[in-house]
Amino acid sequence: MIAFVLVSHSRAVAAGVREMALQMTGGVVPVIACGGMSDGGLGTDACVIADAIRSLAQNEGVLVLCDLGSAILSAEQALDFLEENEKSGVRIADAPFLEGAVLGAIQASAGSSLQEVFETAEGARDLRKLG
Amino acid sequence: MIAFVLVSHSRAVAAGVREMALQMTGGVVPVIACGGMSDGGLGTDACVIADAIRSLAQNEGVLVLCDLGSAILSAEQALDFLEENEKSGVRIADAPFLEGAVLGAIQASAGSSLQEVFETAEGARDLRKLG
Repeated sequence: MIAFVLVSHSRAVAAGVREMALQMTGGVVPVIACGGMSDGGLGTDACVIADAIRSLAQNEGVLVLCDLGSAILSAEQALDFLEENEKSGVRIADAPFLEGAVLGAIQASAGSSLQEVFETAEGARDLRKLG
Repeated sequence: MIAFVLVSHSRAVAAGVREMALQMTGGVVPVIACGGMSDGGLGTDACVIADAIRSLAQNEGVLVLCDLGSAILSAEQALDFLEENEKSGVRIADAPFLEGAVLGAIQASAGSSLQEVFETAEGARDLRKLG
């Protein structure tokens, strides 16, 4: 199963999107929310992201989703903290945060590969919500 | 000033994205978070959305952002609850939820028109976060 790390500047947003992804997949997809700073303020923390990725090492791959460009920078910094074997199955998606997490998790729940989940998450930018 | 209504299935997501939009615009843009059901569960409530739109009537326009397709349906239902004069300056954006809210609010904070803010929010789907 592919796992997810959700990197938002807001603790509430990361936790809330995690709750949505879990509910829409029956809780079968591992999702860790990395949101906000330790004082509860807005921001991202590369050390927290690196720890989250490490804790998901038993999965077939990890997809990292980020809410804004500076969250991507933190995720990239987190990868720099990891050993080669720890980050070989990790990818950062350049996707809409909420939509990429939800659609990606649904794809992952079907047992799809990291590449398939990555493409689904990035494809969420083409999602049209209006009928 | 253009105001925002953020419709998410998750109370935490709506509140967290509102906090991000306010922080990035110095709090000058009116933003109402409509997230979750009254019992705290995941869902959207058309009556709550309609009340939020009504309460923003003193602004030059209201942009509604929705997290998933069923949130769009609730927003459309909310518009059905409103009188013609109450909904004349209201538009629903088909945009990535978080990115559309943050970029739209930044555009609104510059005093832009509803059409400009709408286009910025919908244009957020083309946002590339990776450098």
